[in-house]
Amino acid sequence: MSLLNNIRVVLVNPLYGGNVGSICRVMANTGLKQLALVTPSNLNLQEARMLACNAWSIFEQHREFATLAEAVADCGLVAGTSVRPGLYRAHARSPREWAPTLLEAARKAPVALVFGREDNGLSNEDLTLCTHFIRIPSTPEYSSLNLAQAAMICCYEIYLASNEFVPGAEKSPEAPAELRERMFAMWEETLLAVGFMEREKALHMMLGIRRIFARGLLTVDDVKILMGMARQMRWKIDRLAEHAPDAFPDGTE
Amino acid sequence: MSLLNNIRVVLVNPLYGGNVGSICRVMANTGLKQLALVTPSNLNLQEARMLACNAWSIFEQHREFATLAEAVADCGLVAGTSVRPGLYRAHARSPREWAPTLLEAARKAPVALVFGREDNGLSNEDLTLCTHFIRIPSTPEYSSLNLAQAAMICCYEIYLASNEFVPGAEKSPEAPAELRERMFAMWEETLLAVGFMEREKALHMMLGIRRIFARGLLTVDDVKILMGMARQMRWKIDRLAEHAPDAFPDGTE
Repeated sequence: MSLLNNIRVVLVNPLYGGNVGSICRVMANTGLKQLALVTPSNLNLQEARMLACNAWSIFEQHREFATLAEAVADCGLVAGTSVRPGLYRAHARSPREWAPTLLEAARKAPVALVFGREDNGLSNEDLTLCTHFIRIPSTPEYSSLNLAQAAMICCYEIYLASNEFVPGAEKSPEAPAELRERMFAMWEETLLAVGFMEREKALHMMLGIRRIFARGLLTVDDVKILMGMARQMRWKIDRLAEHAPDAFPDGTE
Repeated sequence: MSLLNNIRVVLVNPLYGGNVGSICRVMANTGLKQLALVTPSNLNLQEARMLACNAWSIFEQHREFATLAEAVADCGLVAGTSVRPGLYRAHARSPREWAPTLLEAARKAPVALVFGREDNGLSNEDLTLCTHFIRIPSTPEYSSLNLAQAAMICCYEIYLASNEFVPGAEKSPEAPAELRERMFAMWEETLLAVGFMEREKALHMMLGIRRIFARGLLTVDDVKILMGMARQMRWKIDRLAEHAPDAFPDGTE
């Protein structure tokens, strides 16, 4: 079972259905499933549903509690988010720093990730229930994140730390030098054939071309496309030359 | 000047004012300032303003363009976000992987961070204008992020990579062993005085107490608080004992 199943998002007194719905989508995007609400306001459910999009089932399965203490009663690690300075908050670390700790704790007991109300954040009373404090990096000019955005950052960092995301790999492997050299040889012949450069300057010109083509990664597929281009241009030139023997009567070709 | 000033968030055909407003707040949270809109829909400006909160000035300073080509005309690196698979998208990397590259490119020319429309993302035509492709990690079950959430992740990664965020440091340094030992000695005396343990078992009991107190980091401030607790308990006990010589007449004290 995924450790992510053991991480509970707890929203204390959320005011806006839109934020709660957005957080459902965030949770589905990042593999989390447990949503707990502590005495939510009279949420606008239409807005919640619209922003949850295809993650409405997370809202439907949420649990409600009268107090934060009850919502986290079975949890070991309880992580609270806060941007305000204060006694506890001096111990805060970033979501990236805490994510591995949260996942490790989730092996043994449910872990709570606690967010306060949109306008006030977590109260000091709520913070006393937290064992860990999270401070999301933001500018001093505007440090306060929207609730759903704060949840996004925390859930995203936990999801990445879980290593459950498998990045789409480059399907084609990097081209080996031998293949790359055959490709450059084809381009050299073609560029000579079209008169882009003279033979005595070919080495110098090709250094420039090599630099352009190989500045980034060149995969086998990339090299095959480049070979196809050179081959087709060469073919076209040769055919045209056959049928237009008088195109360059003065021999400037 | 901060490199972040040279990174432009470009929204192609955004539909919802709420998302555009949210993205203004995201930008303010992460130190970005340049917002460009490509043929936006008839945006709900009231919603935009509500969600921008204290970042409305970013919306007020935005520029509008008829095409993506015009919006990025002066940019070097143009990074497009996409979750759909496809020819270009196989080269996509995560925001964390590309962030240093974007910042490096921002030293020389404006850099564009391009997001498509809420329902369709970026078209293939838009993607041809991109030099780099970003794939935000998300679950295969629900890979599509809300537009403002996608912007949050990208801007957050760029902000972190810029190293402009200075985490609030623990103000008090870690307690040196000598101070820690004086604190444990005070607790030992106090716990003996209250009869919590007998002298012959003190060493063993204190190992448990040490483990509890020193499981996490103990700062100088922490140790001073713990010393204050022990000292005060000891003082209270001694005063009471002076005034209540007959409290333990059988000598069990």
